Amino acid sequence: MTQLAKVESNAVSGDRKTVVRSIIDKVKADGRDALTAPEGKLVCDAYGIPVPKEGVVTSAADAAKLASSMGFPVVMKIVSPDILHKTEAGGVVVGVSDADAARAAYDKILSNAKAYKANAKIDGVQIQQMLTGGQEVIIGTVTDTSFGKLVAFGLGGVLVEVLKDITFRLAPATKADALSMLDGIKAAEMLKGVRGGDPADRDALADIIVNVSQLVSDFPEIGELDLNPVFATKKGATAADVRIVLDFTAKPQRRRYTQEEIVQQMNRIMKPKSIAVIGASAEKGKIGNSVMRNLIDGGYKGKIYPIHPKADEIMGLKAYKSVKDVPGDIDIAVFAIPANFVAKVLVECGEKKITGAVLIPSGFAEADNAEGQREVQEIGAKYGIRLMGPNIYGFYYTWENLCATFCTAFDVRGHAALSSQSGGIGMAIIGFSRSTKMGVSAIVGLGNKADLDESDLLTFFEQDDNTHIIAQHCEDLKDGRGFAEVAKRVSKKKPVVVLKAGRTAAGAKAASSHTGALAGNDRIYEDVFAQAGVIRARSLREMLDFARGVPKLPTPKGENVLIITGAGGSGVLLSDACIDNGLKLMTMPPDLDAAFRKFIPPFGASGNPVDITGGEPPVTYQNTIRLGLSDDRIHALILGYWHTIITPPMVFARNVVEVVEEMKAKGIEKPIVVSLAGDVEVEEADEYLYAHGIPAYSYSTELPVAVLGAKYKWARGAGLI
Amino acid sequence: MTQLAKVESNAVSGDRKTVVRSIIDKVKADGRDALTAPEGKLVCDAYGIPVPKEGVVTSAADAAKLASSMGFPVVMKIVSPDILHKTEAGGVVVGVSDADAARAAYDKILSNAKAYKANAKIDGVQIQQMLTGGQEVIIGTVTDTSFGKLVAFGLGGVLVEVLKDITFRLAPATKADALSMLDGIKAAEMLKGVRGGDPADRDALADIIVNVSQLVSDFPEIGELDLNPVFATKKGATAADVRIVLDFTAKPQRRRYTQEEIVQQMNRIMKPKSIAVIGASAEKGKIGNSVMRNLIDGGYKGKIYPIHPKADEIMGLKAYKSVKDVPGDIDIAVFAIPANFVAKVLVECGEKKITGAVLIPSGFAEADNAEGQREVQEIGAKYGIRLMGPNIYGFYYTWENLCATFCTAFDVRGHAALSSQSGGIGMAIIGFSRSTKMGVSAIVGLGNKADLDESDLLTFFEQDDNTHIIAQHCEDLKDGRGFAEVAKRVSKKKPVVVLKAGRTAAGAKAASSHTGALAGNDRIYEDVFAQAGVIRARSLREMLDFARGVPKLPTPKGENVLIITGAGGSGVLLSDACIDNGLKLMTMPPDLDAAFRKFIPPFGASGNPVDITGGEPPVTYQNTIRLGLSDDRIHALILGYWHTIITPPMVFARNVVEVVEEMKAKGIEKPIVVSLAGDVEVEEADEYLYAHGIPAYSYSTELPVAVLGAKYKWARGAGLI
Repeated sequence: MTQLAKVESNAVSGDRKTVVRSIIDKVKADGRDALTAPEGKLVCDAYGIPVPKEGVVTSAADAAKLASSMGFPVVMKIVSPDILHKTEAGGVVVGVSDADAARAAYDKILSNAKAYKANAKIDGVQIQQMLTGGQEVIIGTVTDTSFGKLVAFGLGGVLVEVLKDITFRLAPATKADALSMLDGIKAAEMLKGVRGGDPADRDALADIIVNVSQLVSDFPEIGELDLNPVFATKKGATAADVRIVLDFTAKPQRRRYTQEEIVQQMNRIMKPKSIAVIGASAEKGKIGNSVMRNLIDGGYKGKIYPIHPKADEIMGLKAYKSVKDVPGDIDIAVFAIPANFVAKVLVECGEKKITGAVLIPSGFAEADNAEGQREVQEIGAKYGIRLMGPNIYGFYYTWENLCATFCTAFDVRGHAALSSQSGGIGMAIIGFSRSTKMGVSAIVGLGNKADLDESDLLTFFEQDDNTHIIAQHCEDLKDGRGFAEVAKRVSKKKPVVVLKAGRTAAGAKAASSHTGALAGNDRIYEDVFAQAGVIRARSLREMLDFARGVPKLPTPKGENVLIITGAGGSGVLLSDACIDNGLKLMTMPPDLDAAFRKFIPPFGASGNPVDITGGEPPVTYQNTIRLGLSDDRIHALILGYWHTIITPPMVFARNVVEVVEEMKAKGIEKPIVVSLAGDVEVEEADEYLYAHGIPAYSYSTELPVAVLGAKYKWARGAGLI
Repeated sequence: MTQLAKVESNAVSGDRKTVVRSIIDKVKADGRDALTAPEGKLVCDAYGIPVPKEGVVTSAADAAKLASSMGFPVVMKIVSPDILHKTEAGGVVVGVSDADAARAAYDKILSNAKAYKANAKIDGVQIQQMLTGGQEVIIGTVTDTSFGKLVAFGLGGVLVEVLKDITFRLAPATKADALSMLDGIKAAEMLKGVRGGDPADRDALADIIVNVSQLVSDFPEIGELDLNPVFATKKGATAADVRIVLDFTAKPQRRRYTQEEIVQQMNRIMKPKSIAVIGASAEKGKIGNSVMRNLIDGGYKGKIYPIHPKADEIMGLKAYKSVKDVPGDIDIAVFAIPANFVAKVLVECGEKKITGAVLIPSGFAEADNAEGQREVQEIGAKYGIRLMGPNIYGFYYTWENLCATFCTAFDVRGHAALSSQSGGIGMAIIGFSRSTKMGVSAIVGLGNKADLDESDLLTFFEQDDNTHIIAQHCEDLKDGRGFAEVAKRVSKKKPVVVLKAGRTAAGAKAASSHTGALAGNDRIYEDVFAQAGVIRARSLREMLDFARGVPKLPTPKGENVLIITGAGGSGVLLSDACIDNGLKLMTMPPDLDAAFRKFIPPFGASGNPVDITGGEPPVTYQNTIRLGLSDDRIHALILGYWHTIITPPMVFARNVVEVVEEMKAKGIEKPIVVSLAGDVEVEEADEYLYAHGIPAYSYSTELPVAVLGAKYKWARGAGLI
């Protein structure tokens, strides 16, 4: 039996995991970390990754024989565990075109190898069918500290190297994920065949992606795997070269609770019946005083236990020396004491069976005290106390009148749940929310994320009926994979918006010196967020506007967006904004076009945008909006208002709301956003429209469309359209 | 003398324009519109565009002889005025490797050509040195309706075809323009040599670009010119294929006035001593009444002549039947009459020697009445009356208390001059300006731009001392080349911001149905704007914020930007925003680092951002800002403020202004922008800071940095840093 035949027989007969396990075990036993080419082929065969026909020979005569049986041309390569850089060693001959050439190449490779490394162990020479034609692509995997195993896809050559045109998905990837990768690169068109070339076999490429991603998921020891290049032809795809590098070092795992445990814990933390304030103080200016005041002034109805080493009473409430002295149960303890006292008190909290500790103090990892943070982390894990922070402002949960924070009290109830890794961003959330009357259900500071992180919040907000949208600012994800898994589920129910700071190299550097956040390759975040249905905000204001606007909009039932505008100029900018935000301007069917024409002046433009022109009375806006809402083929409206004497801003606003409510009474609801162009009175119209569930922005054509775009992104990700 | 020798001799001896003129004349005389390959080579030789050695032969024997003299391999191609698609005709053989092959190829090409087109006139077979190796690039030219001749550069193959990675400059391009093109493509790195390859000869490529762009500028008849591919090696670059297509149809030229004429005209229009209101009316709701009221209520001090067919007096002013009845001179006439009466009255204005007509009426080109527009255009040209509009709201010039418009009166004087093609956008400008107290010098409606356009405004605002920044919204540029020429000059003195609507295909379509604006390839706009030093706004709000913020900032003296922040989280987002906006975060020298460390707590982070941490008193902000302003190595500051009890927003704001004014007294001025994170009180701080010349934005890390980025873009374009 030839070597080739053995390989094939093994791959077909064995269970694929057993085959690969035995290879990896052998590599490990040999003290190696890279697979040889024949080993790589065995692995590929086991996982259904097509590779060229090949075999290893140990004589020039066998070389000629095997090559002839495969068909020419072939590539010949040295096989030696001691020679990794084969080309450098003169161990590769390409384009071997006949039996004589194969014999000559065999001899040449062997003599080159001996010259390169005299004592190299030589297993033979590999003969491989040479692939020609088709589109060159690269399929590989990487192991990311936060996201774990990822599969990568890109086109071969300069497109990956120079233009970094590459896309990632979490492994294992589904077939749908894999197909989306083929469309996810900038040069996607090349796979469809250019310059008269054949299209690449999408199905075959997707299968390789799926199989590779399954392979690295089954074997976490595979640190890197590269198929480079893979030749994709009209029918089939074959990996011309396989490189597999193993990494046997164990990776530390962040402690994970089950989703049920998290729901239980988080409900006790976010809706506590009783709160201990560690370091409560009657002295103004102290953090422990601000926390007490915010709890009391905020109107929290549960029990508040001030904890203080000496005081008997603080702000009219009985004080205790320790949480252990408190007679009843305590759900959470808010820490307002210096970092170095935290560990000791946390142990007492554990003994008291407190569920959550809100660690306001700074002076941990962010201040080079990683050791101190690890200590509290271990105490938390030991007693099962969930830790929020350290290094945070605390948190708000408005539906329980709960302001467990040293910041200003906040009472604008609503349905947006926001969180931030940074305190400053938390304050910006509070200010924006109050200023724009954006109701929030919760604002949570996550700080150093010693324990509680974005995923825990997602799990809580998912089942929290007071929350309709979740918006999170983060600088890193401690467990990106865990986040993606939860986000993928939660985003099916509620929009999840993330502002990932440290997008750029400069930002990542600033983040690492600020909270020690290690921001990774931004393209990975970009792709994983998309895979998980997360809406990515590009800026702080965008995150805030999405949190404010997106939950106002009903879910669209389809992709057809129509612009109705009084200002032609706004129509142009709104159209640009639609493209920028991935919205589809519907193509107007002739009958609908005619129907709109009935309401607009002859010099107005129908089509899309419907330009009703500037001088029209309120009834023209009403008629066209009513038609836009009534016709089933239209799924969302963007209105462009132009301030005129004949239709002043508030008249317009009231008219819009009137039609919208008239249609709602008939069971028709569609997302509507408004851009207003006019003198300052338009700002009052903004507020009125927003208060009536219609996101409206003056002096901007891009913000309203961005909000609608975010709603669409969510609805698509959730599979609702 | 061989054909080849003749060609060479001609090219060397003749004046280059004479050489090319004679070729073009011959092509025209022949009734052709494309140059043959030998003609193309002659043109290239004349303009110093390197092409492969070549010659035309008329026998198989000569083919072998000439090819041997050049060195193999060679390419052989049919030369026939009747066969344009040579490959299709089987008229091309590549890789001819020796004399025998050359003979065989000659015979094959001839028989193929005869088979393809029996009666084709055959001039011979061209033999060309075959280029191999090096980087393939494309250099070409296009003729744009608005911008005229442009030179284009991109990498060969898929990069141009699939990724549209191409860059344009107005022809003729300077050497600096040409070099900037090499860096202006996404795949620029490839020219530097990748995968161990040689870098391309930048100098040689730039010379070809310059020469090609000069050639098409010298000969407007050259409609298209393509050098595809050009092979660029380490030393030299050679165009392997030349395609030149001529277009002898005459292009209509938009009437151009000299810059001196425009300055004179525009000064009379923008600062008129007397205004006639055509269609003045006492009846509320009429446009002619709104115009009268705005002129009077706005406080205009010049003479106002109401023109009305019957009235003797309107709003207390003597009315006239015609402008010709008015005793004194009239500078401008504001038209508030229906479109169909405009032409007749415009003739009277011409006879009265009125300089400018403000054509408010719609009903011209935008309403399918191109004929009516052409009529008034011709009257304007005949009498030398400059036309503003038609289809506009009019214009404001605040420093003359002039509101020549039917919109609301506007009186917030300042230094930003804005214009818009669309009326709705004009209203948004007015609202935003009033709301944010952005002082403006002028707001101008340009509408259909039958005559006056963005360039005329640039020429006026350039010499208008009341204007410090010019911001223009446009949907097209009727004369893009004229605009670019003026903008290039003006932008050296004052920032020019342009919001080009119709960026996307959908937007361009909306523009064409709205005002008939023909938006071209957006990449051309992008590149020409950059070449002309124009700052491109990406959105309406951005244009408005640039107009408001950029003139507040002093010009930076260098590229070193420093972030000082109380909120580490803002520092990260501000860093991201710096990269997004092309700003360079300075690398902190050790001595400066140490100097900052003296002012901040030990757990604060120096480096850049300087993270002073959140709990600091006002003096820490002051100390670090003072140091930032004092040290010569720092050229601009970005401040991140975090609302705390110890440093409340207004305390922060006053402290910043105090230090800035202290340093200004010492002659030190640097651009400073501020991002504020905090509760709603920060909004008051925004206003205070802005009023004191420091652009400040709450709840946003990106807007202040975008404003600073725009200032930098301008300063770089103007050659000031």
